[in-house]
Amino acid sequence: MNKTRKEIPVNTLERMVKYRRILDNYAADGKTIIYSHEMAKLAGNTPSQMRRDLMSCGCAGSTRAGYNVQEMQTNIKSVLGYSETKQTILVGVGNLGKAILSYFSFRVPRVQVVAAFDVMPHRIDRVISGTRCHDIKEMETIIKEQSVTLGIITVPREEAQALADRLVAAGIVGILNFAPVTLDLPDHVYVENMDITMKIEKIAFYSGEK
Amino acid sequence: MNKTRKEIPVNTLERMVKYRRILDNYAADGKTIIYSHEMAKLAGNTPSQMRRDLMSCGCAGSTRAGYNVQEMQTNIKSVLGYSETKQTILVGVGNLGKAILSYFSFRVPRVQVVAAFDVMPHRIDRVISGTRCHDIKEMETIIKEQSVTLGIITVPREEAQALADRLVAAGIVGILNFAPVTLDLPDHVYVENMDITMKIEKIAFYSGEK
Repeated sequence: MNKTRKEIPVNTLERMVKYRRILDNYAADGKTIIYSHEMAKLAGNTPSQMRRDLMSCGCAGSTRAGYNVQEMQTNIKSVLGYSETKQTILVGVGNLGKAILSYFSFRVPRVQVVAAFDVMPHRIDRVISGTRCHDIKEMETIIKEQSVTLGIITVPREEAQALADRLVAAGIVGILNFAPVTLDLPDHVYVENMDITMKIEKIAFYSGEK
Repeated sequence: MNKTRKEIPVNTLERMVKYRRILDNYAADGKTIIYSHEMAKLAGNTPSQMRRDLMSCGCAGSTRAGYNVQEMQTNIKSVLGYSETKQTILVGVGNLGKAILSYFSFRVPRVQVVAAFDVMPHRIDRVISGTRCHDIKEMETIIKEQSVTLGIITVPREEAQALADRLVAAGIVGILNFAPVTLDLPDHVYVENMDITMKIEKIAFYSGEK
């Protein structure tokens, strides 16, 4: 129970996030009880796996009576660190950046996009899906003033590495990178890549093959 | 060499796609030779790993003289199956769907988005980033007429499973799913998920931890 976050395997975390979503949907539908076989099916795994996950994070329940939705929501959100909101910025307000801002404005819990940045004058000082776009020259100042720790990169490939270096120098420790490039960053920075062309290449390659 | 695609591991394929990108960038810059240490660094792996990958796909070269960029491009694209273009549709033309259409219109080789679909009358019969949006009622007909094999799902979570079932029934064998839900589909369908909220939850969880 007193594990540090780094000791929780990625696969376990991913399952926890799926359970959190399922419980949020159940709660939104006004349901108060969920059975382990329902939840396991919705999460795409087995009931025994699910029970192990829940036990490991201190969620009690029984197969027969089901789990209390609200109680399990609270427990899982506590494990996922929901008590703390993380401040985030987005850099690169082209089509993809705009879509991501719109996506984040209503779908993503616990993470708050506090500012966006671009170099193009016609994008600066506009508010997009509730987030103001600033001149990238102000980036370091705003990161410090607002205690921002996460950054979303939606700039073109050629600009991604230099931007990532600037973010890290300013104190950013987590990056969601949409640029199709492998970023070279210090070990203390946690990076996830959303590589759309890579995914489509994999689908094109493997689909329809026996 | 005569391996079927299913026998090529995902990790190897991902590295091949990275090499393809690096070579395309070199060629665009007018460079004709690439050294294995350069290419390995750009791809984020070791020169020896890279040479093994290239040998396994029949690309010859030498450490001293470097590799011929154009020849290696041709070989890698042949391995990746670039001789064949895959027809794709996108369903759900909200903000995310629009951004993905724009992204695909100029950045993604070998895959052609031939049509988009939606249920909302104001989106139908518009052309978005070069792709026409049709009434979803026409989906099955267009899939058959245009020999479409891949589908991109950008509809809301609640609609994703029913839509995926329709796509599979119409003959789709590869799906890129942007909806934050685990799709339950037959084994012959190859699915990749682009789960933006999952990625951001992982970054929020692991970043800044010792």
